[in-house]
Amino acid sequence: MAHDCSFLEDLDLGDDQLSFADGRRESHATDWGTEESGGVMPDAVVWPERTADVSAVLSAATDRGVPVTPYAAGTGLEGNAVPAHGGISLDLTRMDAVVDYRPDDFQIDVGPGIIGSDVDEHVAGDGLFFPPLPSSGDISTIGGMISTDASGMGTVRYGEIADWVLGLEAVLADGTVVRTGSRAIKTSSGYNLTDLLVGSEGTLAVVTEATLELAGRPEQIRGGRAIFETLDDAAEAVFDAVRTEVDVAKIELVDGLSARMANDYLDTGLPDAPMVFLEFHANHGIEAEIDLCRTIFEDHDVARFEMSEDDDEMAALWEARRELAFAVRSYDPDLESLHPGDVTVPISAYPEVVREAKRLADEYDLLVPCFGHAGDGNLHYSVLADPSEPDQLERGEALYREIVELAIELGGTATGEHGIGEGKQPYLEPEHGAGAVEAMRSVKQAFDPTDTLNPGKVFPETADGERVREPDR
Amino acid sequence: MAHDCSFLEDLDLGDDQLSFADGRRESHATDWGTEESGGVMPDAVVWPERTADVSAVLSAATDRGVPVTPYAAGTGLEGNAVPAHGGISLDLTRMDAVVDYRPDDFQIDVGPGIIGSDVDEHVAGDGLFFPPLPSSGDISTIGGMISTDASGMGTVRYGEIADWVLGLEAVLADGTVVRTGSRAIKTSSGYNLTDLLVGSEGTLAVVTEATLELAGRPEQIRGGRAIFETLDDAAEAVFDAVRTEVDVAKIELVDGLSARMANDYLDTGLPDAPMVFLEFHANHGIEAEIDLCRTIFEDHDVARFEMSEDDDEMAALWEARRELAFAVRSYDPDLESLHPGDVTVPISAYPEVVREAKRLADEYDLLVPCFGHAGDGNLHYSVLADPSEPDQLERGEALYREIVELAIELGGTATGEHGIGEGKQPYLEPEHGAGAVEAMRSVKQAFDPTDTLNPGKVFPETADGERVREPDR
Repeated sequence: MAHDCSFLEDLDLGDDQLSFADGRRESHATDWGTEESGGVMPDAVVWPERTADVSAVLSAATDRGVPVTPYAAGTGLEGNAVPAHGGISLDLTRMDAVVDYRPDDFQIDVGPGIIGSDVDEHVAGDGLFFPPLPSSGDISTIGGMISTDASGMGTVRYGEIADWVLGLEAVLADGTVVRTGSRAIKTSSGYNLTDLLVGSEGTLAVVTEATLELAGRPEQIRGGRAIFETLDDAAEAVFDAVRTEVDVAKIELVDGLSARMANDYLDTGLPDAPMVFLEFHANHGIEAEIDLCRTIFEDHDVARFEMSEDDDEMAALWEARRELAFAVRSYDPDLESLHPGDVTVPISAYPEVVREAKRLADEYDLLVPCFGHAGDGNLHYSVLADPSEPDQLERGEALYREIVELAIELGGTATGEHGIGEGKQPYLEPEHGAGAVEAMRSVKQAFDPTDTLNPGKVFPETADGERVREPDR
Repeated sequence: MAHDCSFLEDLDLGDDQLSFADGRRESHATDWGTEESGGVMPDAVVWPERTADVSAVLSAATDRGVPVTPYAAGTGLEGNAVPAHGGISLDLTRMDAVVDYRPDDFQIDVGPGIIGSDVDEHVAGDGLFFPPLPSSGDISTIGGMISTDASGMGTVRYGEIADWVLGLEAVLADGTVVRTGSRAIKTSSGYNLTDLLVGSEGTLAVVTEATLELAGRPEQIRGGRAIFETLDDAAEAVFDAVRTEVDVAKIELVDGLSARMANDYLDTGLPDAPMVFLEFHANHGIEAEIDLCRTIFEDHDVARFEMSEDDDEMAALWEARRELAFAVRSYDPDLESLHPGDVTVPISAYPEVVREAKRLADEYDLLVPCFGHAGDGNLHYSVLADPSEPDQLERGEALYREIVELAIELGGTATGEHGIGEGKQPYLEPEHGAGAVEAMRSVKQAFDPTDTLNPGKVFPETADGERVREPDR
């Protein structure tokens, strides 16, 4: 679906802000989740350097019916930044400035292209940090995190990206620049456009600046690891700790298979057993919280419970969790990971979804390493299959689907933090029902009637290159 | 603007679910903020008892162009529930059930008509509570709180209503029933309709059920009061405490004039001096936080700092704050409170807005008692004027407006927690800019193209009985 993008040459852009070169287009064709598929080439890449650039591109593109897909670090896992309908890839990585910093208000205004950990670095001298960074926080951008309402290991204590975005500057499809939210930490004025745009995956507007809230670094940090006999024990222990409101800052589950992969990869000498990785943050009483957690874990037959306050020791205890994604990827070169699982359920249902994932892996005879932000009820799972074996692929798809359907049935979600993108489109309506999805369509229609912004995402009917259907209502 | 509502008799409603009687209509004409003006009489009152009733009324009313205004406890301060264009007052107080309660997940599903404190009572036996209740929590309903995204004294520690609503069941103008959100505490699936509906003041949909999150009660609670020499000291002390991240659960400012009114009303024997009312919640280290707060307050010349862990003593220390609204109202029967001030600013700007409010009171020679949820940067102020003196009214209006404009200039909001309703309409566009308000209009248009739901609210052009303007974009 090639689009004539020569009009871009008439806009007020510098020579290095626009490219039609194959190499640049190729590098904007995929994200992490679509590397295997090859993605879709945009017809042009634009690097805006200021809000006015974004406005000019969107206004001109909308006039001409040319799609615009925001792009930044490309770390999405659901094809979120793939230019599915071609057109323009709008690369926001140059808009990475700290625009304003107000430490007394715990606020910082940044461009969407800034890397998450750079925000942390900027404010560290004042004892502050940006709490909801995802695991990819040192390579992915704030704009990307906003687009999927990302979250991460710290979410169990600190919440998600949306909880830390006070306001946005954003450009609508017709080029209008809007400001949402307030610098006041509490407002009841008008509709909450900020939280509507957060998580909308660039389908409603392009974020050009964000006002983020910050928090003070905790005075005490302890980190460590618990090893369990069975996965069921580990999952029940997490549920019990959350139900008891143990004040954990991170509580990550890793199943025995994932542990084996990490042990192979790292040569750790650890047992191939289910593990829970923990971090505690507090200004007071951290030892009491750790003791409470240990007692609860002992009720679930924890085999080892190791905790440290030394940075290096903590890092060593956490190594298997930290390297897990690489360990899974390099475990067997013949196996490929199908869609990345990202289900999230109410915490009481967590043990069930974990049990069922492993039972299905046995039933379908596939390797399915499981891990995730257990305190949020989040389970990441990778369905590994040999792409040269159609039967394995089919079983893998079925297994993958069954876990998502179970999560939805348990009151949970198909995607806790990666967004719908392309990969989770089949589950949008099963999760929300037809009425809510029609309401979402009407919002899309209101914001972007020509479907300029990131077409092909979120709404299932766009999977085959169609535009978002007009809502029936 | 009378509307023929006889079609309601053809719906499947019980005899006691529908009234055209003057008395019932009158009791639905006003809210707390519009008692003096007399409000607007609806043409009919309906008491739905189930979601299907709401759906039937909305569908039929939309077909006939008859306005529907949701109503519950009527405790709004901005005319939020006044049926400004007549039509139907939809009284949701009978939909007050606890539909489901899942203590292990810290979740409860309730009807919109349930009183806030009844939620607390229902869950207290499990050591849980619903943290973001406003001061009116024992008379106002959860549905009302959702409509304005209410907040209260505990917001400085626990956040606002929106932070504790996981999902909604709501009925759209055409009668479609939708479910938003998830029982998972984290989701990235589709647009965030929940936070769009929260705070939309019944102009986009009628909430028929809410899934709320709960928290465990803190193990330690201390409460007390600090008395300052000057208001500036008190405001600066609050700013300093917040900037230092003292872990307060409530931190309320009361100016000297308000203190005088409370002292007169209660005969407390306290000095007519600025006060800060405090409450601390913690599981560990509460004394350390209190000591830190005391030290900071001493830097700002605090005159008295009294704290207790005894329930009765705490209640006594807080009495002046608790009775303040009544004290202000009964201070002088010749004086009336003009619009209720509800500005909120970034915390660094709080001392300035407090100073300026008092300076303007002197300049305009009016009594303006000031108090508020200082930790959020919130300032409530009552402009008192003699309604028989046109000159006082005019000065009062000017003073009121100047404080709102200052708050907006400082990056804050015209309304921290009461919503726009009718009273704050002039400030919607100055605060958000034309582009964002047009985006809000397009959302309204998408959800409710016939302007059935609570017409006359939020959008300034509706003040004179007009419908919401179609957005230009």
